[in-house]
Amino acid sequence: MKLPVSTEWLLHCATSLAQLEPGATASAAQLADYYDLPAPYLAKQLQALVKAGILAATTGPRGGFRLARAASEITMLQIVEAVDGASMPYECREIRRQGRGALPPEDCRSICVLAEKMADAHRAWRASLAGVSLADILAELPAYAPERTRSRLTSRA
Amino acid sequence: MKLPVSTEWLLHCATSLAQLEPGATASAAQLADYYDLPAPYLAKQLQALVKAGILAATTGPRGGFRLARAASEITMLQIVEAVDGASMPYECREIRRQGRGALPPEDCRSICVLAEKMADAHRAWRASLAGVSLADILAELPAYAPERTRSRLTSRA
Repeated sequence: MKLPVSTEWLLHCATSLAQLEPGATASAAQLADYYDLPAPYLAKQLQALVKAGILAATTGPRGGFRLARAASEITMLQIVEAVDGASMPYECREIRRQGRGALPPEDCRSICVLAEKMADAHRAWRASLAGVSLADILAELPAYAPERTRSRLTSRA
Repeated sequence: MKLPVSTEWLLHCATSLAQLEPGATASAAQLADYYDLPAPYLAKQLQALVKAGILAATTGPRGGFRLARAASEITMLQIVEAVDGASMPYECREIRRQGRGALPPEDCRSICVLAEKMADAHRAWRASLAGVSLADILAELPAYAPERTRSRLTSRA
């Protein structure tokens, strides 16, 4: 199982936007330039974060993207699921109900034990990422990072 | 991110083989019949479990597949990774090192903090599945399950 390559892009872009001054924005072109990424595809992906309520997009001459809420209120899980969706990697197609071994309906009232264990693992993964906010990430960056990010990201398009 | 559809097949097949009498085997045709699955593709997938040391394949008129070790020594993680590989779903392509924002090499000596948090989540997922053996699964099945599985799985090809 693989997450989209753009997962890395969006995690980094959101982290960079979290380092801007309150109210400041960066455009898709600036973010693409900052990370040397394909601007049109990145712009499309950034819209997925807007749709998920993680980023806000403003228009006009100074328009661009900024966080839609506080960095402490945005988790890595929210970003990853905005990019990739929230469905479980394991798909239970209920093969226990088919073939010569098919279980009768009364034995299938509760979830298959194998699907349940796979769901437990997915919950553990989600809980791990839900426990890390952008504010937590920022707290682990070197002290000089925000100033450097701001000057390199927004000094020119 | 998605696991292959065959993940469900292999988890169920291994669980069924774990219910056979010691030394007994079931063929790919019997397993395909038991779950109504495409036999040639299932046979190929079963070989992945043989290669991973989870199943043993025996030849001859009474040949087939059996567990290669005790059910308590086979975890769900081993089965899932035999089917899907063990690589991490999140790929870090080090975009922090490229573009206008590129960090100097001395700032990239340790793993990117975002990649580290994604790795933490993957470790949580792996630990969850590594903590469940086939013996644990069997312990959650109804008491009548092994006898039913044996008679339906091996009574005829």
